[in-house]
Amino acid sequence: MADMRMIEAHPAALAGIDTDRLAECIAACFECTQICTGCADACLAEDTVAELTTRIRTDLDCADLCVTTGRVLTRRTGADARVTGAALDACATACEVCADECDRHARVHEHCRICAEVCRRCSHACRDLLGSLG
Amino acid sequence: MADMRMIEAHPAALAGIDTDRLAECIAACFECTQICTGCADACLAEDTVAELTTRIRTDLDCADLCVTTGRVLTRRTGADARVTGAALDACATACEVCADECDRHARVHEHCRICAEVCRRCSHACRDLLGSLG
Amino acid sequence: MADMRMIEAHPAALAGIDTDRLAECIAACFECTQICTGCADACLAEDTVAELTTRIRTDLDCADLCVTTGRVLTRRTGADARVTGAALDACATACEVCADECDRHARVHEHCRICAEVCRRCSHACRDLLGSLG
Amino acid sequence: MADMRMIEAHPAALAGIDTDRLAECIAACFECTQICTGCADACLAEDTVAELTTRIRTDLDCADLCVTTGRVLTRRTGADARVTGAALDACATACEVCADECDRHARVHEHCRICAEVCRRCSHACRDLLGSLG
Repeated sequence: MADMRMIEAHPAALAGIDTDRLAECIAACFECTQICTGCADACLAEDTVAELTTRIRTDLDCADLCVTTGRVLTRRTGADARVTGAALDACATACEVCADECDRHARVHEHCRICAEVCRRCSHACRDLLGSLG
Repeated sequence: MADMRMIEAHPAALAGIDTDRLAECIAACFECTQICTGCADACLAEDTVAELTTRIRTDLDCADLCVTTGRVLTRRTGADARVTGAALDACATACEVCADECDRHARVHEHCRICAEVCRRCSHACRDLLGSLG
Repeated sequence: MADMRMIEAHPAALAGIDTDRLAECIAACFECTQICTGCADACLAEDTVAELTTRIRTDLDCADLCVTTGRVLTRRTGADARVTGAALDACATACEVCADECDRHARVHEHCRICAEVCRRCSHACRDLLGSLG
Repeated sequence: MADMRMIEAHPAALAGIDTDRLAECIAACFECTQICTGCADACLAEDTVAELTTRIRTDLDCADLCVTTGRVLTRRTGADARVTGAALDACATACEVCADECDRHARVHEHCRICAEVCRRCSHACRDLLGSLG
């Protein structure tokens, strides 16, 4: 996994952080950005788009918060625990809200089912990392 | 202000939100994105860049969290109070950490002084809007 | 204008670039990001959303390309003319396509009328700066 | 690969695009965003940061253009060939400039070597997709 190689190539000491959990959370954030961007667009192409507007909006927020959190986590130089913690909480919250919205459409739309699965993985990775930061 | 015109042109009911506070916070978030991006780059061009690495990193996080929060706030369709609240908290936190870091360099670098001023305005706008959401 | 103050506070020599045109273009890019994000969301809230899906998608692309181009332009350290030029061209193209799409709905939706106006201003600012780069 | 599943779950007809090439290019864009964000931060943590400022700036531009292009490509609803083409060209250009800069430091810094490799893969994927769009 390219991001694990990058973490290992970083010159800064990574004291106080579990690098496996970190790498998993970064990968989950970037994957979730992409999947939520795709789900928003797939919803937009459905005949029933008028019933999916909250779904789309939730996807857009989640995509934005995931890529931002993935970038914040990727930066290890001069990391601030308050910023990292607040970004992880915002990202996990957006993923949870998005997954709940996805679940309501998961039987009808395969893209919503995939999106729910990826959002839950990302929220768990964020909560897990947040817990390990103490 | 273009964003106030957009808020007024939005078809959704904006019950439960103070539109003046909202417009002010959106404008502050986009301004802060731009200023933090500029301050990171100006720091990078300083001869003393080696002493400014935490400064640069803090700017990059703040720029990312501000534009994401500005976008989340701009979306009014199907807004979720938990996501809005968590994004506002993450943005305000990043602005506060960034402003504190800026202050340490504000006498030497005019770009850090401007950045501290804009970050504080943005953190206040976020905390103010967060408080009004109840 | 905060961004003009930041440009003036930047330690790097800004040879070969017209700083007034640059500041105007940066401001146009950030304004357009916000307006396109707002117009996409306002379209999503319209009863006729099913007829506005191309409109929404065009807005989302334009918002993403504008903020990225605004950030690329804001960075003056080690600027590369090929990257600056290609980003300006992509941003101007997205603004032109978005403005054309907006115009088709501008009589019905005030948010599309505002968005068309802001997109045209941004595409002109990008083409103007691109021309001055030679 | 999650993004291939999303492409297959999309309701829109994907006529005129090679979905394997598309999925590969989207994956390359998101990977490159993450790697360039990481390389910028690793450079910032090096003792020799003062010699790496153009390197860092190039990484930041590349990260921004890659995530934007990845999002533009992920959206299939109402895609516009001019916007797709211009975004692909901007992304490929940023990747090429970044890879060239990386190569100059690849013997000394493993993170620059990895970054050069990922940037070249992404520029090839972009140029390849651009060529297939005709």
